[in-house]
Amino acid sequence: MSIDAVPARSVDYNRVFAQAIDRLHEEGRYRVFIDILRNKGQFPNARCFAGHNGPKPITVWCSNDYLAMGQHPAVIAAMEEALHDVGAGSGGTRNIGGNTHYHIDLEGELADLHDKEAALLFTSGYVSNEATLSTLARILPGCIVFSDELNHASMIAGIRHSGCEKRVFRHNDLAHLEELLAAEDPAVPKLIAFESVYSMDGDVAPIHAICDLADKYNALTYLDEVHAVGMYGARGGGISERDEAASRLTIIEGTLGKAFGVMGGYIAADRTVIDVIRSYAPGFIFTTSLSPVLVAGALASVRHLKASPAERDGQQAAAAMLKVLFAEAGLPVMDTTTHIVPLMVGDPVKAKRISDILLREYGVYVQPINYPTVPRGTERLRFTPGPAHDEAMMRELTAALVEIWGRLELKKAA
Amino acid sequence: MSIDAVPARSVDYNRVFAQAIDRLHEEGRYRVFIDILRNKGQFPNARCFAGHNGPKPITVWCSNDYLAMGQHPAVIAAMEEALHDVGAGSGGTRNIGGNTHYHIDLEGELADLHDKEAALLFTSGYVSNEATLSTLARILPGCIVFSDELNHASMIAGIRHSGCEKRVFRHNDLAHLEELLAAEDPAVPKLIAFESVYSMDGDVAPIHAICDLADKYNALTYLDEVHAVGMYGARGGGISERDEAASRLTIIEGTLGKAFGVMGGYIAADRTVIDVIRSYAPGFIFTTSLSPVLVAGALASVRHLKASPAERDGQQAAAAMLKVLFAEAGLPVMDTTTHIVPLMVGDPVKAKRISDILLREYGVYVQPINYPTVPRGTERLRFTPGPAHDEAMMRELTAALVEIWGRLELKKAA
Repeated sequence: MSIDAVPARSVDYNRVFAQAIDRLHEEGRYRVFIDILRNKGQFPNARCFAGHNGPKPITVWCSNDYLAMGQHPAVIAAMEEALHDVGAGSGGTRNIGGNTHYHIDLEGELADLHDKEAALLFTSGYVSNEATLSTLARILPGCIVFSDELNHASMIAGIRHSGCEKRVFRHNDLAHLEELLAAEDPAVPKLIAFESVYSMDGDVAPIHAICDLADKYNALTYLDEVHAVGMYGARGGGISERDEAASRLTIIEGTLGKAFGVMGGYIAADRTVIDVIRSYAPGFIFTTSLSPVLVAGALASVRHLKASPAERDGQQAAAAMLKVLFAEAGLPVMDTTTHIVPLMVGDPVKAKRISDILLREYGVYVQPINYPTVPRGTERLRFTPGPAHDEAMMRELTAALVEIWGRLELKKAA
Repeated sequence: MSIDAVPARSVDYNRVFAQAIDRLHEEGRYRVFIDILRNKGQFPNARCFAGHNGPKPITVWCSNDYLAMGQHPAVIAAMEEALHDVGAGSGGTRNIGGNTHYHIDLEGELADLHDKEAALLFTSGYVSNEATLSTLARILPGCIVFSDELNHASMIAGIRHSGCEKRVFRHNDLAHLEELLAAEDPAVPKLIAFESVYSMDGDVAPIHAICDLADKYNALTYLDEVHAVGMYGARGGGISERDEAASRLTIIEGTLGKAFGVMGGYIAADRTVIDVIRSYAPGFIFTTSLSPVLVAGALASVRHLKASPAERDGQQAAAAMLKVLFAEAGLPVMDTTTHIVPLMVGDPVKAKRISDILLREYGVYVQPINYPTVPRGTERLRFTPGPAHDEAMMRELTAALVEIWGRLELKKAA
């Protein structure tokens, strides 16, 4: 059906679609993607194509390539080698032609990173959460999932798609979690799903305390470490490694697309759990496997960060300095214990306005974070300083923000 | 909770998981992934690592890299250039730092390929189906989805996740589809979801006739062309291009991971439809965008196949020859009108046995296709000859199959 033609007594599809878009404009949260190309070897520098005559140099302050590993020589070399050895794509699902030696090696490396028996690759972190949670909960008859209220959209999707009962506990609230666990029949399967580093507020879950509750109420645990792997723990195994809690968790989930700088997602767990997900999850079974080029790059990245703490140390130092500079300047920075530096605005239109001025006038690229990524009223700019952001960049950024805060008469920190 | 400890009156998780795996073994459909590496420039040759002392040369007969574009010099060169220009990963979602010039260029190229106003990239074909169908049907109040019974798992997932009513019509059965459409209120939004080439039987949907019904009953249409893009139509726009039906379809979905040889998925449609999916689909919004390296490779591949019919012609000639050789040898080949050559076995254990013998004794790699990929009782071997499979390879393969058919006393063609 052409969506322009509208016979009598029938649906005007065009109108429904246009209204859906209008709602976003009215709320000031219609998203415009900024057209950029990063310059390899010059992180955090990039080129911006939108609204200019030709590319304009910018500094990226919102990348999840947290440690600039996407531009690391070892990663680039490994990808180039794989590209020339086996070609561009895998050519099939893991079961039908798309299982390569690279995949098997990387799964071994990731299992080792998290001190687990086995690991399983997915095409993205989103898919690993959706596929694993939906399959795990579905395979346990009558399972109830206990989910932190700030869990990522992909975890919420996975839980919803399992068709299971869900209990949402207040963010990192152990008393509330226990109250919900205690209210259920001990004979019913239970799964606690949570994250280690919450990406928008930059706070950290009490992993051991949650595992204590899991032990007490015989629940399985699922920990999303996508904003922690590569960055915390002696080998980059995440907060669960740093806190020596990895062995207590049933499943640890991570990404290859943030600190590891490439693309893809994974889970690590006991061999049987991995075999169940591998054998039953549609989002794993029915999809072309990760390109061997990406897998080779991720393998080099994981191996590098296992051995090298320099990137982690540099990131922590940069984040600490930026938080101090923002606070000293009276900017409403959220105090976090991690590498994530949120600057609160509380209004989607203003957040977009600040971001636009930064890009246009200062060559600073930081995206406004609006609903549905964060709750309405908590709109913000989210900075992710890394080892390549130096002090001069941070002072320039702070001065720019102070000027804009004054110009737009925004609220300063209390 | 350690999954080994089992307090009284509580769930034995280990047992549940082990039983789930046992069921697969009992049915003979526990999947063993074959560990291979393809040799770039020597398609369809590869190395197999499983069960050998060192790699063993094999011929791949079941790749979905149908035209060997994953090894095409133009694709490799484009990926190498992007790798050195911008690095390994995109570093973020499309909205937050992960939107590059490559993504925008490829979306323009794909929109043009399908003669649509716009296109949208996803991390996989699976995700494009799941995210688009679930979002589209959810945004239309009271929408009913009409779904071909043989639709791919990712389409079924998307429809299920939309929470909409679903009517399943018998495979390619226009009378049944019309019966179901006519039974519903004309004022209710309707969406017909189907594929062009069905990947396991290799048959083709009557696109124009389905669009006629869509017009008559004011329904939107969603066509999955993943097993057709690059391979059919003068520029590789799929069956919808070959049949000159592209303009009649609301949404055309395709993959970058099969004939285009790389990885990723996409949809093409009117600008408003694309904007709705871009703005509302969690599976698009909350995930790291495709690596610019993959996007650059796909861009080169799409451009090459738009201009070059040689790969398509070679594939059709190879498929025609293999079907004739199988039929002349009395092997139970399914007669298809496409590039897919299914050889029916009808039993999961025997299908696996044949595949194992082919790999071990003949260096032929073709995966058994069992439930849930195909209905029980229709287990098969699925051959995908391409432009690089020559007549000698086909005659060797046919002779090997005839020998195995005799050895295992399998049923020959009627």
